[in-house]
Amino acid sequence: MRFAPEYVSHVLTDNFDDAKALFLEPLLSMHYAHLVMLVECGIVAPEDGRRIRVALDGIDQEAIRDVRYDGTYEDLFFYVDRLLVRACGEEVAGRLHTARSRNDIDMTIYRMRQRERILALVESVVALRRALLEMAERHRETVFAAHTHTQPAQASTVAHYLLGAIEQFGRDATRLAAAYATTNHNPLGACAITGTGFPIDRTRTAALLGFSGPTGNTYGSIATIDYTLEALSATGVLLVGLGRFLQDMLLWCTMEFGYLRLPDGFVQGSSIMPQKRNPVALEHARAISSRALGQAMGVMTAVHNTPFGDIVDTEDDLQPLVDGAFRDAHRATALVAAAMRGADVNVDLMRRRAGENWITITELADTLTRDHGLSFKHSHAIAQRLIASHSRTPERPLADLLAEASAEVTGAAVRVEEPQVRAWLSPEHFVRVRRTWGGPAPEETTRAIGVERERTEADARWLAAAREGLAAAAAALKARAAEI
Amino acid sequence: MRFAPEYVSHVLTDNFDDAKALFLEPLLSMHYAHLVMLVECGIVAPEDGRRIRVALDGIDQEAIRDVRYDGTYEDLFFYVDRLLVRACGEEVAGRLHTARSRNDIDMTIYRMRQRERILALVESVVALRRALLEMAERHRETVFAAHTHTQPAQASTVAHYLLGAIEQFGRDATRLAAAYATTNHNPLGACAITGTGFPIDRTRTAALLGFSGPTGNTYGSIATIDYTLEALSATGVLLVGLGRFLQDMLLWCTMEFGYLRLPDGFVQGSSIMPQKRNPVALEHARAISSRALGQAMGVMTAVHNTPFGDIVDTEDDLQPLVDGAFRDAHRATALVAAAMRGADVNVDLMRRRAGENWITITELADTLTRDHGLSFKHSHAIAQRLIASHSRTPERPLADLLAEASAEVTGAAVRVEEPQVRAWLSPEHFVRVRRTWGGPAPEETTRAIGVERERTEADARWLAAAREGLAAAAAALKARAAEI
Amino acid sequence: MRFAPEYVSHVLTDNFDDAKALFLEPLLSMHYAHLVMLVECGIVAPEDGRRIRVALDGIDQEAIRDVRYDGTYEDLFFYVDRLLVRACGEEVAGRLHTARSRNDIDMTIYRMRQRERILALVESVVALRRALLEMAERHRETVFAAHTHTQPAQASTVAHYLLGAIEQFGRDATRLAAAYATTNHNPLGACAITGTGFPIDRTRTAALLGFSGPTGNTYGSIATIDYTLEALSATGVLLVGLGRFLQDMLLWCTMEFGYLRLPDGFVQGSSIMPQKRNPVALEHARAISSRALGQAMGVMTAVHNTPFGDIVDTEDDLQPLVDGAFRDAHRATALVAAAMRGADVNVDLMRRRAGENWITITELADTLTRDHGLSFKHSHAIAQRLIASHSRTPERPLADLLAEASAEVTGAAVRVEEPQVRAWLSPEHFVRVRRTWGGPAPEETTRAIGVERERTEADARWLAAAREGLAAAAAALKARAAEI
Amino acid sequence: MRFAPEYVSHVLTDNFDDAKALFLEPLLSMHYAHLVMLVECGIVAPEDGRRIRVALDGIDQEAIRDVRYDGTYEDLFFYVDRLLVRACGEEVAGRLHTARSRNDIDMTIYRMRQRERILALVESVVALRRALLEMAERHRETVFAAHTHTQPAQASTVAHYLLGAIEQFGRDATRLAAAYATTNHNPLGACAITGTGFPIDRTRTAALLGFSGPTGNTYGSIATIDYTLEALSATGVLLVGLGRFLQDMLLWCTMEFGYLRLPDGFVQGSSIMPQKRNPVALEHARAISSRALGQAMGVMTAVHNTPFGDIVDTEDDLQPLVDGAFRDAHRATALVAAAMRGADVNVDLMRRRAGENWITITELADTLTRDHGLSFKHSHAIAQRLIASHSRTPERPLADLLAEASAEVTGAAVRVEEPQVRAWLSPEHFVRVRRTWGGPAPEETTRAIGVERERTEADARWLAAAREGLAAAAAALKARAAEI
Repeated sequence: MRFAPEYVSHVLTDNFDDAKALFLEPLLSMHYAHLVMLVECGIVAPEDGRRIRVALDGIDQEAIRDVRYDGTYEDLFFYVDRLLVRACGEEVAGRLHTARSRNDIDMTIYRMRQRERILALVESVVALRRALLEMAERHRETVFAAHTHTQPAQASTVAHYLLGAIEQFGRDATRLAAAYATTNHNPLGACAITGTGFPIDRTRTAALLGFSGPTGNTYGSIATIDYTLEALSATGVLLVGLGRFLQDMLLWCTMEFGYLRLPDGFVQGSSIMPQKRNPVALEHARAISSRALGQAMGVMTAVHNTPFGDIVDTEDDLQPLVDGAFRDAHRATALVAAAMRGADVNVDLMRRRAGENWITITELADTLTRDHGLSFKHSHAIAQRLIASHSRTPERPLADLLAEASAEVTGAAVRVEEPQVRAWLSPEHFVRVRRTWGGPAPEETTRAIGVERERTEADARWLAAAREGLAAAAAALKARAAEI
Repeated sequence: MRFAPEYVSHVLTDNFDDAKALFLEPLLSMHYAHLVMLVECGIVAPEDGRRIRVALDGIDQEAIRDVRYDGTYEDLFFYVDRLLVRACGEEVAGRLHTARSRNDIDMTIYRMRQRERILALVESVVALRRALLEMAERHRETVFAAHTHTQPAQASTVAHYLLGAIEQFGRDATRLAAAYATTNHNPLGACAITGTGFPIDRTRTAALLGFSGPTGNTYGSIATIDYTLEALSATGVLLVGLGRFLQDMLLWCTMEFGYLRLPDGFVQGSSIMPQKRNPVALEHARAISSRALGQAMGVMTAVHNTPFGDIVDTEDDLQPLVDGAFRDAHRATALVAAAMRGADVNVDLMRRRAGENWITITELADTLTRDHGLSFKHSHAIAQRLIASHSRTPERPLADLLAEASAEVTGAAVRVEEPQVRAWLSPEHFVRVRRTWGGPAPEETTRAIGVERERTEADARWLAAAREGLAAAAAALKARAAEI
Repeated sequence: MRFAPEYVSHVLTDNFDDAKALFLEPLLSMHYAHLVMLVECGIVAPEDGRRIRVALDGIDQEAIRDVRYDGTYEDLFFYVDRLLVRACGEEVAGRLHTARSRNDIDMTIYRMRQRERILALVESVVALRRALLEMAERHRETVFAAHTHTQPAQASTVAHYLLGAIEQFGRDATRLAAAYATTNHNPLGACAITGTGFPIDRTRTAALLGFSGPTGNTYGSIATIDYTLEALSATGVLLVGLGRFLQDMLLWCTMEFGYLRLPDGFVQGSSIMPQKRNPVALEHARAISSRALGQAMGVMTAVHNTPFGDIVDTEDDLQPLVDGAFRDAHRATALVAAAMRGADVNVDLMRRRAGENWITITELADTLTRDHGLSFKHSHAIAQRLIASHSRTPERPLADLLAEASAEVTGAAVRVEEPQVRAWLSPEHFVRVRRTWGGPAPEETTRAIGVERERTEADARWLAAAREGLAAAAAALKARAAEI
Repeated sequence: MRFAPEYVSHVLTDNFDDAKALFLEPLLSMHYAHLVMLVECGIVAPEDGRRIRVALDGIDQEAIRDVRYDGTYEDLFFYVDRLLVRACGEEVAGRLHTARSRNDIDMTIYRMRQRERILALVESVVALRRALLEMAERHRETVFAAHTHTQPAQASTVAHYLLGAIEQFGRDATRLAAAYATTNHNPLGACAITGTGFPIDRTRTAALLGFSGPTGNTYGSIATIDYTLEALSATGVLLVGLGRFLQDMLLWCTMEFGYLRLPDGFVQGSSIMPQKRNPVALEHARAISSRALGQAMGVMTAVHNTPFGDIVDTEDDLQPLVDGAFRDAHRATALVAAAMRGADVNVDLMRRRAGENWITITELADTLTRDHGLSFKHSHAIAQRLIASHSRTPERPLADLLAEASAEVTGAAVRVEEPQVRAWLSPEHFVRVRRTWGGPAPEETTRAIGVERERTEADARWLAAAREGLAAAAAALKARAAEI
């Protein structure tokens, strides 16, 4: 073999192993589809076509997976080609290479692989939204102290918090679906980079491989990597959002917060420290998310400032990084979905904390303004005085303190019953009056849960349709090839 | 003032200056819109509303831009508030703060700023596509040696190459438009993070500020940064694509290639070395693109693993990096558009190189197969022999060499006239027969140019409509505020 | 002016403003140093030298800072050159340009600027270590529950925790000092890229500008950016470490943890919620750190895959990103140093939590093994049983439970007094026995504090010496120039 | 097994496979070293120690590599532990776990692995420098047109260019050696995070494992990741520099430049296009470098904003990304070294191009100033006129044109012989007079080659010593363990 040993050990061996793991199946499908098209377009004679098809049928994927690279062929493509030549002769096998090249073949199988990866990721995003929606449904009335600037700031509900995340994950699914649409075009027929003089039908191979249609310009079909960068970017946005959600959930899992309890299968404890429940699933999910994000951004870095054309930078060496980013993103998302599915929150503790630290006091001031006609300035001053006098004399009724404070500030005492004041200051009241569009009032979160559930299921239907489309194309290709 | 001097010098001063440069105008628009809504919803009395409006009218943006931060107020918002208090009193000015908070205000003005940035970027992407389309129209027949793996590989046309890039930039515009749609929702009314008990109308402020509608969940409205990450990701994909195109154009500008000539205003020369034409505009465009990409990726890194909530990490300190990424992306794209608008290629040199190095030889083999019924194996062998014999006897007619080679390989000489062989080997022929969908044949690039022109103009119309929408909303807000 | 308007607006204007802000002072110093060397080497005649020096003396930096770019000169260098020509005529002013070029000038002033930035960063790292050392000294005996996997896991001391961070920041200072040494070489004299035929003395300009010596190869002097990448990498490592420390400190600041209290000037509260103490200084420090890291990594991305040579990618457009990364890193570090200087921990709460959750139970098992000769397996089983029986009968003495558990496991009861068992389980005991090299025992942290204090002060001395070296060179340059 | 199936499939399976590939060998060495220390310190009885040692001796690494993860144990560590328990019983096997934990074990084996990776990288950096030095030695007199701003700008030599790169790679080796020194400290004995109450000897295990000594603070020993970030940063700086060098070499390999010819084993051609020599080794090297850089930066991103403590983010999931970055950096560097070792440049073509485009004209002007006492302004004007008149009348002797031009400019003709003018304009003259420190004059590059050769060999000796140190420690450990 003419390759230098360093080239074999540092490049070709890795690439062969990567290709076996990632691209063997799409490679064979592509062979079948191209063959069918060549025969249908009259470029390859039926009898030759049949012999090639029989040769393809004889290829044993499992056997190939066990092959160790030996440097006597360039890569997986040529290894498969060698098998084909053995099966039907160089002359006939050679006809399969009409009107195509390594370049468009590679771009085609990269896109096929990426389709699977995007769909798997959408699946885990749907699963995550379902898990969080279930939790939200259980916790429409579960109040807790929402943080701003890392401090308890306002009462809200667990459902309200989760819906913020669910909506975001819904937009992630939209972005991934857009990336799928960009990806799902067929570059086959772009050949080396300028197409061919043979009368091929790019639309036909597109249909046979489940693509929505051919890509456009053949130079761009080989040169562009934007379909990958768009998909990885959508993945990156998802990952940053997931990572932020995980930061909160890990905080909720600390013993000091004590809000979230993961199911047993997702924690690791200590046989000797019974309370220790390391939330390892979420920890790993964060670490795997970070790795996925690192890889996704690494792809951007790797491709930046390379030529716009057929160039190794977007090909064999890069693909494992691309695939790793998608795979890890899927692992992390699926893991969080599974862990949250059985997780639950400590309702009592959350409720108790929501009643501390006067985080509902602004609502008292709002109420004085809204319902008692006081100016904001006065309402605010009364609230401040109420807190101060309570701190001095915690044993006195709040209603008395309120009456005194309001009399001092405005000259006229606001007189209400003690339960009323306490109700005004309760987290439940705080939440109940917040019926703003998108707010935490249970009636509003109920509406929002309905909307998000519908969106989630619509995405689930889209996913099912996309997968059925690919499965149907694969079945049709198999059947059509068998007829040759 | 109670802030520590290090906090003033290391944080607040920078943030004040940044806010003046980036957010003053949206801040004031937001004030007007919120005021109109409060009055319309009966939350603020008309007379108070009018006094606030008059106070707002009295704010002199230019004067504010000259203010130096002195640490006696927290930030720009509070500086403006101080002006309002001075103008209409604390009591009345305070009413403007009903049913909102710093949190939703910030998110609103960030989105308003980002809208402008995205639209400016779409504008430069449209300009770039137009410039390249014009060049493509001039060069449908300009053949050149397209590279694969950094080497001359196949004949193509300049139009064909450019269309590959144009299509990609078209997809960038689509991604940016999607990011605009995500961005263009109004978070105002989310208040601190849970909305409000006041009966506000989020849809109304959305309309007054030109948003397509309110955001959903109020927690998410404050917490999420995905609208920015999506827009920066779309920008990042554009930048990587632009950078790859620039790599090629800079290569074309080298004296050794000699393909591309930039207009005089975009190069820097040497008074003493007359041929030196440093393509500085493209060099700077690459450097500015890289900086933009670095900033865009930096935002991802900066936000990763922060909590999902109201948190400084996505706010004041981050915004200049966000804005810088958009601004630099716009600068780079607009610069390339301007430089390419007047650039032109060296048609003769490109043609000459396209005829060298046998880069069209595969088409000869294809032709023998397609039109003379030879098998690929034989066609290929004949082509190889032809090259070899020509290298030994360059003076002999190619037709003779072909006849001999074919006779040797197949036993039967392929006999054609010399001009026919030369035509088969000509780059023009190579290109002409490549009528594949997306190929370089002039009839096909003509079709593709038409398609891309229409897409570009559709995006231009979308851009104009988006800007008109914002302008109309601004005018309507101004008029409506004046009526209070 | 011959530049295209887009080139002026998108490139030259920014670059002029950036250069004024970043490089004006080093530019003038470089002029003086080069002039002195030219005169000393006999390349410029003394009388011409003196006229140039007088022209340089006449340049008003403040006036230049007010200049708005008008496109009639290329950049700041040429603007200054215009002033020199006006002051001493084209002929004489031109002599200053002997044996140098824009290329080596730029690289020289970049390095001069970077020196200042690195030293400022070292200063803030020293300040941070001092602040943390002071806190560590106060808290050698302050036990707390150190986390592993986000959960309370073992008793340690605040001093022990802080020393882990302090040592790391110490290594950061070492890395920054190494980067300073790499930076502090003088590229002046590399001229355009090949040096010059004039008999210049690169060592002399190096000395005049405070460099430790000249750079080596002139091509590399212009081409390389490794001196910046090394310094930014060291900064990046620091920033990641700082960010991790900040994560902990922000956690300690949450109301739910309640461990850390920042000084008043570094928090923002709520007039109405008295307990709210948003730890804004640390929040901003994290955000600014992240921005700095984003910029530093952005520089890597921006320079990757550019040519190794004189190329815009490492120059004007990049420098603001470089400078921003250093500046923000300094701001963040200095801010944390200032905030921690006055911060303190809640000793009682930390102590109480350290006694919960059986986090010291492993030490009981260790003790049974170490001091009572039990096997690990038995010690561990006894500890488990002790916890279980205590949970059933919390009112019974631990000594009794221990005796029963040990009898059950080994057949022989371990009998000790109740205070002894409680002591074995106390966090203070846990810490005290951990005298391992680097462990939390107060005698060991006392030793370590001494070591770190010495290292910190050594770095402070290095910093002072480096700054004195630069100041001395500047003074000597001024004096020597005045003699011409 | 109690782990959830999603946790097994998404986390534990990957981690087990990664650990087998990366950490099995260091894990076993660590076991031996810890055992020896425990016995020597009297913490484990000799007879128990011997039984454990025999159990360790019986572990078959190859057999472990074939194990498929089945979820009945947590990870590789516990799998090995199970083997030990089987071999010597739970009671005895358990004694090996005295005074250590998973935390310090992991950190120890990570550092051991990283040591190997750094040394391998230094080895390839040394190989690269040697290859380039050999080329430089052959091409001290090979002139070529060095580029600035992507354009031919000045004559230099191939040796001069290469020395710029060689010096940079030398600094990379220095940075890697510093990172090795940081890495090469032993965290074993930090146990979970606070050390232990057992009287262990951390210095002893350090020596047994080839570390230069123990790490310091035990909390930091577990928490810090700076040793990895420093090493990856040094690697990143190397990679950016390597990428920039590769950009140039790939440019040199284009047919349009035609400067560099790689050895046959490092190119891929086309059977039909005889001139096509795709420089695939360099293309792959760039792609693999980019991937390595992407991974290295990904690690920074992944670790940023995680807690400073024992946390999954720096552990199992991250390590493959860390290892991949080092491994790919090594592959890329070794590949470039191998490809450049046999590469050579086209001396004639380089020489010819160096004589074009008047890139030496500045030296003519310099000469008139330096040797004929003309002012720069006059010299420059003369040079310009000479070019202009030559362009009008290329047939006339340059000496005549010079005489006329000088007469016109100064009134006095500079008269020299034609060969003299031509010599002044020759690239060889241009290079020869540039004897500046670090310049291209052959006498100066000869000196510099000597310096760099010495530095390279010093690094090679350092590398050999480091490896011998590790090998000696391993041998000593083996011998000492056998004695137990």
